[in-house]
Amino acid sequence: MNYYITNDYQALSELTSSLVLSKMLVDHRVNLSLTGGSTPKGAYAILKDQLKAYGPFPHVHFYPFDETIVLNQANEVVNYENVADLKAQLFTPGGIADDHIHHMTETYHDTFAADIARDGGLDLMLIGIGSDGHFNANMPETVRYDEYVYGVALTDDYPWNAPYQATLGDDRHAEMMYTLGFKSLLKVRHVICIVNGSHKAEAVKKMIEGEVDPTFPASYLRFHPNLTVILDRDAASLLDQ
Amino acid sequence: MNYYITNDYQALSELTSSLVLSKMLVDHRVNLSLTGGSTPKGAYAILKDQLKAYGPFPHVHFYPFDETIVLNQANEVVNYENVADLKAQLFTPGGIADDHIHHMTETYHDTFAADIARDGGLDLMLIGIGSDGHFNANMPETVRYDEYVYGVALTDDYPWNAPYQATLGDDRHAEMMYTLGFKSLLKVRHVICIVNGSHKAEAVKKMIEGEVDPTFPASYLRFHPNLTVILDRDAASLLDQ
Amino acid sequence: MNYYITNDYQALSELTSSLVLSKMLVDHRVNLSLTGGSTPKGAYAILKDQLKAYGPFPHVHFYPFDETIVLNQANEVVNYENVADLKAQLFTPGGIADDHIHHMTETYHDTFAADIARDGGLDLMLIGIGSDGHFNANMPETVRYDEYVYGVALTDDYPWNAPYQATLGDDRHAEMMYTLGFKSLLKVRHVICIVNGSHKAEAVKKMIEGEVDPTFPASYLRFHPNLTVILDRDAASLLDQ
Amino acid sequence: MNYYITNDYQALSELTSSLVLSKMLVDHRVNLSLTGGSTPKGAYAILKDQLKAYGPFPHVHFYPFDETIVLNQANEVVNYENVADLKAQLFTPGGIADDHIHHMTETYHDTFAADIARDGGLDLMLIGIGSDGHFNANMPETVRYDEYVYGVALTDDYPWNAPYQATLGDDRHAEMMYTLGFKSLLKVRHVICIVNGSHKAEAVKKMIEGEVDPTFPASYLRFHPNLTVILDRDAASLLDQ
Repeated sequence: MNYYITNDYQALSELTSSLVLSKMLVDHRVNLSLTGGSTPKGAYAILKDQLKAYGPFPHVHFYPFDETIVLNQANEVVNYENVADLKAQLFTPGGIADDHIHHMTETYHDTFAADIARDGGLDLMLIGIGSDGHFNANMPETVRYDEYVYGVALTDDYPWNAPYQATLGDDRHAEMMYTLGFKSLLKVRHVICIVNGSHKAEAVKKMIEGEVDPTFPASYLRFHPNLTVILDRDAASLLDQ
Repeated sequence: MNYYITNDYQALSELTSSLVLSKMLVDHRVNLSLTGGSTPKGAYAILKDQLKAYGPFPHVHFYPFDETIVLNQANEVVNYENVADLKAQLFTPGGIADDHIHHMTETYHDTFAADIARDGGLDLMLIGIGSDGHFNANMPETVRYDEYVYGVALTDDYPWNAPYQATLGDDRHAEMMYTLGFKSLLKVRHVICIVNGSHKAEAVKKMIEGEVDPTFPASYLRFHPNLTVILDRDAASLLDQ
Repeated sequence: MNYYITNDYQALSELTSSLVLSKMLVDHRVNLSLTGGSTPKGAYAILKDQLKAYGPFPHVHFYPFDETIVLNQANEVVNYENVADLKAQLFTPGGIADDHIHHMTETYHDTFAADIARDGGLDLMLIGIGSDGHFNANMPETVRYDEYVYGVALTDDYPWNAPYQATLGDDRHAEMMYTLGFKSLLKVRHVICIVNGSHKAEAVKKMIEGEVDPTFPASYLRFHPNLTVILDRDAASLLDQ
Repeated sequence: MNYYITNDYQALSELTSSLVLSKMLVDHRVNLSLTGGSTPKGAYAILKDQLKAYGPFPHVHFYPFDETIVLNQANEVVNYENVADLKAQLFTPGGIADDHIHHMTETYHDTFAADIARDGGLDLMLIGIGSDGHFNANMPETVRYDEYVYGVALTDDYPWNAPYQATLGDDRHAEMMYTLGFKSLLKVRHVICIVNGSHKAEAVKKMIEGEVDPTFPASYLRFHPNLTVILDRDAASLLDQ
């Protein structure tokens, strides 16, 4: 693991955008897995314009690494939340064709990791971490390290479930989420982890300088053979070095 | 992980020899880390003649992954046991030049993993496993997963110490052994694990089909992103599949 | 380029077989392009049994690099000659599934190189050379260096055409052959070139020690960034070194 | 080859800087070969600050790909012109340590390509092209395609010699220049070629859309298996597509 400290969120976003774009400006098949959530919003705001300017990228494919299936009251699927978020932020404004976006669904998830392997493996996974130490949808309460891909039934056994369901609105709920696991992460050729903000400084410290702790999944990231961590000063503020 | 079952020890040895040789017949720098011990004896008996026939290999370097320092009664170093074994079995008859053999010593071990990284990383690590689940010198009682390289003081806290010291003879003893750890293993581009014999069938089953178990280091091998396991029928006899 | 000299055709065949097999015993997608013709017959006689013993190989795909379309008197396609030869020698006895064998046809050839790129590129191309310096179907009279893939109309402008057509029998003929070109060769991660026999010793000398000569395509092989040449003593007999 | 068109020199410089930096923010040994000259000045003005901000980079080494030895009237070496230029523009302000900068000298050049191979090969070569089609110091009049590295005696046989010597001043001259050749270029894992300005539009057109022409070395760049060309609109203005 190498880590680099940027001055602020804007600098982190610019650097992250350029790291993702640089993977795409090559002459061979490229498979990318990009995180959703709030951390990369700044990067994607820059990157979408670059994708539009330099694309299309017929050699580049995308494989979002987790998915939550949103249902209505009739239990019909109404949203694939994570890929929808990536499409809105990045893929649609960036002009990425739908057939280059591969994502898990309620009927397609168990072979997702194997299909990535069949397609040549991932060149880059861009991830964030949570204050609780989760990465992708590998949550402290549900993480299964010995898996390439797995599903988690969303129940109130987990403290984050009720708040999450509430964000979906009264007429919507989610029953399952799927995620690539630690074994899939280890197969990625380059993992970039971005973290900003003082509210994550403790998580960053545990990730980089703490003990390996099965209840803090981010502490397992250090096992990846080619991991780059991009921090802003706030997120790095508790590091010894 | 993919595993392949050979008919017997001779077939395993031939296949292993050809897998190692194939890494060497290329036109770029190659760094190899080969196991000592009994399992590869058959392979090296074949390989040494091939090295002699097709060598020298100016682009190939060797980095034995563990070392035990043998001392005499005056506490003077009299042997680097593992590299001495490899030299006797393979490097000397195969005509490998000494300056292409890099190994840990009592004064050179803490930067060994970093120096491998500086030299471009390992292309291949050939390992075996023990019935107790050890790989390299990562023993169940002493394994430290969060390390690239580490030393272990040899004391009678460990059940295998006294029997091992006895093999050295009355006038010799060892105080320290050094080994590359799990984090170094994960950085190797291809790991080949060879196992033969029914006495290791249970260990093979735990390695491949058992739970991940910190007290059985070989169960962590499955995390490697590019692991090939070569078994003979006896070693594979307890596998379900 | 590195080259290695084996004692005889049997040793060349054993080594070639082991080099191809070693590319397959890994845990990631592998794309291989293997030559037909007479040189690899000995290797494939060994390899087919190994494929049968260690297969199936769900992660391995094959892309023969040239094809000649054989027609009957009604101009109907009756054979894809090169892939048929590979199937007979290797793929069918080795148990390789048809949907892992990708080859050019009269209606599918112009996107063949692009489709290989989409599938992740070739890990290995195993080739031979002719006494006239051809490799793949890049013949001295028809070679086009600035192409990934191209077709050649078979006419009596070429000295080898009439003898070739005669081998097909009175009721059959071929009008087109297709081949991957030099630019596709340069994209392969590892090229292994095998040559045996004193009748090719002069071609070997020109390939390795001669001038780069556009009318001797094998002299361009030296530009490949990772080329391994396997010779027997007869083929190597004219080399200076 | 893939090419991308930026709006102007500033955009080209920003993109180039980010592409070079992205190669460095990884966790493995990296070897870079960067061009001197005027084209990258804008990129290096940005990059030097990033190197300073994110460095040091103990895993990154630099290998300038050509060198001209400047002598005084006593024929004593007074300058290694190309590396001096890179140091002034980039390495010194960027804080790159001298022992990570490897360059050819009058007594060290013949093994330069072999030493790069020993060090693991180049991950990136950043090059420009001249209006006359030269790349590195592979000039139309002196280019030798079948070489990894070679020297050229600077004489008035070449039209560019006298004007070049004049730039050195009355009391200085150069007798030799050394350059990595086409065979070394082909071994680089990623080549990025940057070109700006309408005065190079014709050269760009010949490089990308013209015939392969031995007297126009840049037309050979298309053979590289992983080439990215970054242009500004002016340099791209004559392209058909």
